[in-house]
Amino acid sequence: MLSSHPKSKVLAVLPKGGAAAKQPDYLVCQENALDLRDWLEKQGAEYVVTADKEGENSEFERHLPDADIVITTPFHPAYLKPEQLQKAGKLKLVITAGIGSDHIDLNAAAEKGEVTVAEVTGSNVVSVAEDELMRVLLLVRNFVPGYEQSRGGEWDVPQLAQKARDLEGLTVGTVGGGRIATLLMKRLKGFDCTRFYFDKQERQPMTDEGVEFREDLDSMLAECDVVVINTPLTDKTRGMFDKERLSKMKKGAHLVNNARAPIVEIESIVEALESGQLGGYSGDVWYPQPAPKDHPWRKAPNCYMTPHISGTTLQAQKRIAEGVREMLEQWFQGEPFREDYYIVREGELAEQYQ
Amino acid sequence: MLSSHPKSKVLAVLPKGGAAAKQPDYLVCQENALDLRDWLEKQGAEYVVTADKEGENSEFERHLPDADIVITTPFHPAYLKPEQLQKAGKLKLVITAGIGSDHIDLNAAAEKGEVTVAEVTGSNVVSVAEDELMRVLLLVRNFVPGYEQSRGGEWDVPQLAQKARDLEGLTVGTVGGGRIATLLMKRLKGFDCTRFYFDKQERQPMTDEGVEFREDLDSMLAECDVVVINTPLTDKTRGMFDKERLSKMKKGAHLVNNARAPIVEIESIVEALESGQLGGYSGDVWYPQPAPKDHPWRKAPNCYMTPHISGTTLQAQKRIAEGVREMLEQWFQGEPFREDYYIVREGELAEQYQ
Repeated sequence: MLSSHPKSKVLAVLPKGGAAAKQPDYLVCQENALDLRDWLEKQGAEYVVTADKEGENSEFERHLPDADIVITTPFHPAYLKPEQLQKAGKLKLVITAGIGSDHIDLNAAAEKGEVTVAEVTGSNVVSVAEDELMRVLLLVRNFVPGYEQSRGGEWDVPQLAQKARDLEGLTVGTVGGGRIATLLMKRLKGFDCTRFYFDKQERQPMTDEGVEFREDLDSMLAECDVVVINTPLTDKTRGMFDKERLSKMKKGAHLVNNARAPIVEIESIVEALESGQLGGYSGDVWYPQPAPKDHPWRKAPNCYMTPHISGTTLQAQKRIAEGVREMLEQWFQGEPFREDYYIVREGELAEQYQ
Repeated sequence: MLSSHPKSKVLAVLPKGGAAAKQPDYLVCQENALDLRDWLEKQGAEYVVTADKEGENSEFERHLPDADIVITTPFHPAYLKPEQLQKAGKLKLVITAGIGSDHIDLNAAAEKGEVTVAEVTGSNVVSVAEDELMRVLLLVRNFVPGYEQSRGGEWDVPQLAQKARDLEGLTVGTVGGGRIATLLMKRLKGFDCTRFYFDKQERQPMTDEGVEFREDLDSMLAECDVVVINTPLTDKTRGMFDKERLSKMKKGAHLVNNARAPIVEIESIVEALESGQLGGYSGDVWYPQPAPKDHPWRKAPNCYMTPHISGTTLQAQKRIAEGVREMLEQWFQGEPFREDYYIVREGELAEQYQ
């Protein structure tokens, strides 16, 4: 096959799969390497895959100066800060195997001009939306304390039931009205709850679904029993849920965050959980990742976290691997990607990262 | 107000609320007594409420011989076996404050002829259906092991993600096609999964919802990634999920049971979880209740239980209390109940208990 980029060096940073890598569907790991090795090598490309990403002596940083293409994932982020971008003298393409490219300094990448950044838009939106809805339900219904009683805690139904509510009749608001939010709201429709969304602009698909657009964030927060964060991490959203914003929420309401951890203030969340201002917090995103052993969310009350897995179901891994391959095929043939895959293109940031 | 049953003695067996009883919405407890005391006493009735229900010296059994009306709940069941029914010489009406009257020997009650049994049909169907869907999601997405890692277990994303799936594209089947099943299937619609139901008869509301009726239980089980039990406990459903039936399920599929524990065989469930034939089991029903400390479901792998709380959300408690009061009002005025409230009427069992 003719290629406009023959003999590219492709450097992928993926987590170790370990025992899980024996399962052939487990694609987003070093061992199974997005199922790209045979194909890439047939194209004449060199394919280096490593999990070793921290520090200048890491495999990642040692291969960076020669790499034409870098593939990273939000689940095991190899950070591309100005320092790494400068080191990467040949770099032309950065692909995020997943969604969320905030581990890359996008402004610095845009300034370089000749670097394209793209992500597999849509690859795990269903996965994340389902996971958000699961968290909405387990918060509202007070699942975890019940599970813990079943595993050997004191059996106390009233203690559980006094905090257990149906989702029906409650109000759920999403901050951010993009793809994941739309899929969440579609799934919430069957639950007969009131659904609001806040976004920088009113997007048509959400109002089509019977979801009410709210112009003012704080007044929406005051009405919601559950708030779900669905914005990318940008300079504007960093620290958005600080102590003051949390105080605008209804007392005892729940917060779900599968977006990015730095959109909230770690300590303010803990304080709000301890005071009862927040009834519960649940999500799968941390900063940094993996979370250190002493991360306060690991022991805060009513804080129901998991490692970062909502976007890496087996079906999502398949869609991610297919999306990366689609982009590489197009790149090698000098063809453009799907419009919505681009995050940085010819020095310009995609709208959601501006 | 004139009453056809003046000076009735109403005996209610409700769990102790303890600290939870301080919350005025927490109605299904001894202290708040379904919010009936003032009203009942104005009617001229005597209202005895106790949580003490075990053995012949319990408050329950000591008041039984004089009781005209007995109110019990499935959440803290006072068992009305032939022995208790015989002791209850004046008993005319038994109301289940909730749904599920299997703690009452319904055949023995029917044989007595003059005893009416009724439950608050519909009062917690939404609550249970929502709870079932939460359990479907947390099983498929492998939530609990992730939560446990966050609380101090070893951080191992691949171990979690290799078992995490989206519900989208999977197949969910309900055994039983009644009210709760219909509400579950309505809520599942937004998830784009295949939905089956098995029932003794094909019921119209389910096919209207786009759910496929399956005539043969075992062949349905072989196709399902998740099976949800939605039948009452009767002589026909007791032990329905034994070792042989579990072997008909797809290997690694999940089972949800918020219906009644004795519909499954306790030890067969544990064996199937240990062998991997069952990928996971989740529910809130036990036998007996509360579960003894050494109940095997408290330590079985991939077994995500809670105490019996799915039907006692705060909204459900309100609906239950309102339903009991509605029936008492009608009873005192000599009027019939809503048709679907009757479980035993003039010696006949309701269809779902036959």
